[in-house]
Amino acid sequence: MVKQSTTMSSLTANDDCLGWAARDASGVLSPYNFSRRHEIAGIVKEVGSNVHHFKVGDHVGVGTYVNSCRDCEYCNDGLEVHCVKELVYTFNRVDVDGTITKGGYSSYIVVHERYCFRIPDNYPLASAAPLLCAGITVYAPMVRHKMNQPGKSLGVIGLGGLGHMAVKFGKAFGLNVTIFSTSLSKKQEALTLLGADRFVVSADQEQMEALAKSFDFIIDTASGVHSLDPYISLLKTAGVLVLVGFPSEAKFSPAILNLGMKTISGSIVGGTKVTQEMIDFCAAHKIYPNIEVIPIQYANEALERLIKKDVKYRFVIDIENSLK
Amino acid sequence: MVKQSTTMSSLTANDDCLGWAARDASGVLSPYNFSRRHEIAGIVKEVGSNVHHFKVGDHVGVGTYVNSCRDCEYCNDGLEVHCVKELVYTFNRVDVDGTITKGGYSSYIVVHERYCFRIPDNYPLASAAPLLCAGITVYAPMVRHKMNQPGKSLGVIGLGGLGHMAVKFGKAFGLNVTIFSTSLSKKQEALTLLGADRFVVSADQEQMEALAKSFDFIIDTASGVHSLDPYISLLKTAGVLVLVGFPSEAKFSPAILNLGMKTISGSIVGGTKVTQEMIDFCAAHKIYPNIEVIPIQYANEALERLIKKDVKYRFVIDIENSLK
Repeated sequence: MVKQSTTMSSLTANDDCLGWAARDASGVLSPYNFSRRHEIAGIVKEVGSNVHHFKVGDHVGVGTYVNSCRDCEYCNDGLEVHCVKELVYTFNRVDVDGTITKGGYSSYIVVHERYCFRIPDNYPLASAAPLLCAGITVYAPMVRHKMNQPGKSLGVIGLGGLGHMAVKFGKAFGLNVTIFSTSLSKKQEALTLLGADRFVVSADQEQMEALAKSFDFIIDTASGVHSLDPYISLLKTAGVLVLVGFPSEAKFSPAILNLGMKTISGSIVGGTKVTQEMIDFCAAHKIYPNIEVIPIQYANEALERLIKKDVKYRFVIDIENSLK
Repeated sequence: MVKQSTTMSSLTANDDCLGWAARDASGVLSPYNFSRRHEIAGIVKEVGSNVHHFKVGDHVGVGTYVNSCRDCEYCNDGLEVHCVKELVYTFNRVDVDGTITKGGYSSYIVVHERYCFRIPDNYPLASAAPLLCAGITVYAPMVRHKMNQPGKSLGVIGLGGLGHMAVKFGKAFGLNVTIFSTSLSKKQEALTLLGADRFVVSADQEQMEALAKSFDFIIDTASGVHSLDPYISLLKTAGVLVLVGFPSEAKFSPAILNLGMKTISGSIVGGTKVTQEMIDFCAAHKIYPNIEVIPIQYANEALERLIKKDVKYRFVIDIENSLK
């Protein structure tokens, strides 16, 4: 979620990178100078001699991972995020050269071109950043489970960063989209600004029962522990519920799943192939995440607001203008 | 699980059918005269004037359902068991004519030809009966989830009536099959008689960990409550675990499911189309359930043994010779 300058060069680095980081258990962020190679949306400043797909000035994005083995069946299939050998996340992981990846709250990042995505020049960089996590997290399973079939019905559980992108993709795919939320507060905006077809408060048992067996697909973005049964009951025969949130545990009644040969499937962000496809789809269909652009100096307040779910729907840190 | 005479005729009925039934809460079965129309493998004795696909003398089977609306999208697609309007199970359900379906522990049954399956003359009737429940319950999801790919790996949880059929189908599909069981008692037989490639006692943590991420498919036939996590962990990326048992509840950790974009899918017996396909597959590949044929008079003792899991692997009641 960073608008910054992204550098693609050889993998050497200096201590000249300025960032903001949390350096104790309080989680408070403050300015920090470090040597870095990695992370999120920005403009190419340098390219190494072996870089073939990008040139200086190109707009590029970097997602949640910056390296993989490039040799296993998943890497070979463009599914690098499922690399069985050495997937390197974009922050706080040890890369193959022994350095620690440090995320994207910083003035530049050095990344192998394989893990960079082309952002069309007319697509705002600030809007591109959330695509690389929230966007791809919902887009990848939607395509994999063939949700891009106009006229089918989609339920979206939770209307945060992931949920609001699921609604946008769902409408672009021609689906009838219903949002399931714990509170009414976002109803008006969901129906008008996001274009959802229906908004249901999940505690409304009467409305939930009236919708039994009426959904082809459900995307569950909720991160709190909740029973899946009320939602599995909403699926038609052979319907699919995709989990993209990370509750500590999930429970369901096999009878409800079995009788309709229904499916629960998990998902995370996608490989490089589907990620680039998703960016191109967003550009072609003018799909933009709803964002609130903030300076890095506002990061701690933004984190407080995130905990209170007070954001519509993603913060984007303007690194370029606030880290000078 | 009945070897009997099956009658296909008009839907009128007399009180001339002799069966065995449990008539109080004790569950004890005893002889019983009743008027019946329904249930499981036998020989056609009469056909109604509108019956086109069967003639007297044909070998036929009847599964777990004997009627449906024949008009909804699922019925039209040969998926009658998922009929959204009026699926009628083979026993203890009210049929469209108001009669109660009474199962197959009886001398004959009257069934619409749509819900009868052709059993090749050279396939033993006693072996055919378990195909129509245990067989189709595992075959349907195996085909649906494309498990018929030689060289892939299959885990089978539980080695009862369903599990032993999953092993047989798995081997016929060219899969590498591992059985997960709570006890060692069936190991030798599983490897030699059933032809499984590996037998794992699920409490053996060391062996379970050594098999992490090594299975393309798992079929879970266990009916007791158990965590799915140890088994989801065994799946490769994009692996599929199919639930066919009916524990009261199932639990898992979404993180384990999500990180490998794995799938849990439920299933029950199949529609008429896949059921006939399964019978023909068994005949072509000489796949026979392992059965213990008993007279109806032994039914109560057999039920006691079922509770103690003392059967390899299905009882089949020889109605023809014991109900006279």
